[in-house]
Amino acid sequence: MTKITLGIDIGGTNTAVGLVDSKGKLLQRFSIPTSQTPAALVDAVKAAYIACTLKEYDLKGVGIGAPNGNYYKGTVEFAPNLSWKGVVPLAEMFASVFSVPAWLTNDANAAAIGEMQFGAAKGIKDFIMITLGTGLGSGVVVNGEVVYGHDGFAGELGHIVYDYDGRSCGCGRRGCLETYASATGIVRTAEEWLTNASVSSSLRNNTIITAKGIAVAAENGDELALEIFDFTAKILGRQLADAVAFTSPETIFLFGGLANAGDLLMQPLKRHFEESLLQIFKGKIKLAFSALPEGDAAVLGAASLAWHELA
Amino acid sequence: MTKITLGIDIGGTNTAVGLVDSKGKLLQRFSIPTSQTPAALVDAVKAAYIACTLKEYDLKGVGIGAPNGNYYKGTVEFAPNLSWKGVVPLAEMFASVFSVPAWLTNDANAAAIGEMQFGAAKGIKDFIMITLGTGLGSGVVVNGEVVYGHDGFAGELGHIVYDYDGRSCGCGRRGCLETYASATGIVRTAEEWLTNASVSSSLRNNTIITAKGIAVAAENGDELALEIFDFTAKILGRQLADAVAFTSPETIFLFGGLANAGDLLMQPLKRHFEESLLQIFKGKIKLAFSALPEGDAAVLGAASLAWHELA
Repeated sequence: MTKITLGIDIGGTNTAVGLVDSKGKLLQRFSIPTSQTPAALVDAVKAAYIACTLKEYDLKGVGIGAPNGNYYKGTVEFAPNLSWKGVVPLAEMFASVFSVPAWLTNDANAAAIGEMQFGAAKGIKDFIMITLGTGLGSGVVVNGEVVYGHDGFAGELGHIVYDYDGRSCGCGRRGCLETYASATGIVRTAEEWLTNASVSSSLRNNTIITAKGIAVAAENGDELALEIFDFTAKILGRQLADAVAFTSPETIFLFGGLANAGDLLMQPLKRHFEESLLQIFKGKIKLAFSALPEGDAAVLGAASLAWHELA
Repeated sequence: MTKITLGIDIGGTNTAVGLVDSKGKLLQRFSIPTSQTPAALVDAVKAAYIACTLKEYDLKGVGIGAPNGNYYKGTVEFAPNLSWKGVVPLAEMFASVFSVPAWLTNDANAAAIGEMQFGAAKGIKDFIMITLGTGLGSGVVVNGEVVYGHDGFAGELGHIVYDYDGRSCGCGRRGCLETYASATGIVRTAEEWLTNASVSSSLRNNTIITAKGIAVAAENGDELALEIFDFTAKILGRQLADAVAFTSPETIFLFGGLANAGDLLMQPLKRHFEESLLQIFKGKIKLAFSALPEGDAAVLGAASLAWHELA
């Protein structure tokens, strides 16, 4: 019977679940809406696992990637992008329902572990993983180890403040990086800019503005959409330059929904990033996309967290 | 014969040299102006060592703390606060002149090592050392190890950008944290604010504005001076809150000239810092002054770097 771990990625919208073998092969995956109580979500994952699993596996453990995930305690605490309140002992809940050990970390830390074990960060000892989804997450790796900090909460670059008088953030403060640089942030930029009636853009034809829609418009040469990408890239590039001054990574990897915009994002990002870097870092730090299949990095990372702990 | 290492702290103005035994006892120290060529400085340190040393010691190594110090290469590279240009192989130069091995790191990393080995950071695995001198330096410690980054240059928090349209910085960019939060930065604030003729302040009686003079005025209740401290503390507090989101330290230590302002700085700093923190970090992160004697942390740190490498 094949030994597996479950990799669980708690997203703002959906929770992805993957069955992963010890070599990092994703054998099967399914997805469940996140917006329910933690207990209901855990039960739904269990029910789906039982219903969907095509053959019998030897489940060894559960690894969870979650926003505001506390590695040391296995809890999700005050996650601004989830409807859950307070402190949720999610690792314990999964361990209890599945009767196997469970571990939990920041979803972006999980992505970083996945990238390090099975992706483009193999052999890279100092890197940062930036996840551009509903919010902006980050996993900071120093000397081959994820930085958890004294309380398990390190790596919240989405809540580095770009503009103290800026956009209101789900965390209760203003101007956090993720209110600009994320799938949600780029939509806010478009919506704000489109309120200026004198601005013309093909985006006005869209009934709903989405990150994908902005990318399509930009690909078709829409000037406003291109400016929106440039604006987003400028803010992200500046803040990543600050991050370099902090831990001097060899590479910064981008991953998640907004990263799918590819060169639309990467080209202006590289330019703004390079311009913003302190002299001693110029020309030395690589920006790259995650090498893991879209959406799988977090699930593989969460599963590899479990494999790592079981080893 | 007592075994010692030399701890050398290259400051913007002065270079401090300390003779330190293996238990971290500072046996003797002297100081030399930094503003000369690197070769002249190294020779001057050697000459002073020969002339000033009161008894014979068994010199085992040299540890150097320098701005923009590259731990891996032993070089000082493009240091914005020094008159030296380009890349200076300072560790090699000291090793050659003293005929003992030499190691070099960021001056603030050296201070962090000193604090960890001989100061208030004993037993603390995740902390940040902030040095508030001519510039603002930082040493980031994660899991008991100084973060050097992929190229040896990590921990340049003085060059995190606070205001992209802000004050010009020695690094060639604008609005770096150290242009506000440093002995030099607080003087710039005072000078800027005093150009407004309608502002009254006892600082107008000072022929030269210094950080110390501003502290004295604030102690005597001068409102402008108190506002200057509050402004400085707000900027530093906000940026330290961002730093917490990055590596989640247990404590942030302050050290250096401006830290001598004591409660004048610490009281507003704690308030602004706490206000700026992301919810999950509120009430958990300590701000404290270095426990090492003024000016000795960097020298002890540099010396302890050498002891650490010799061990």
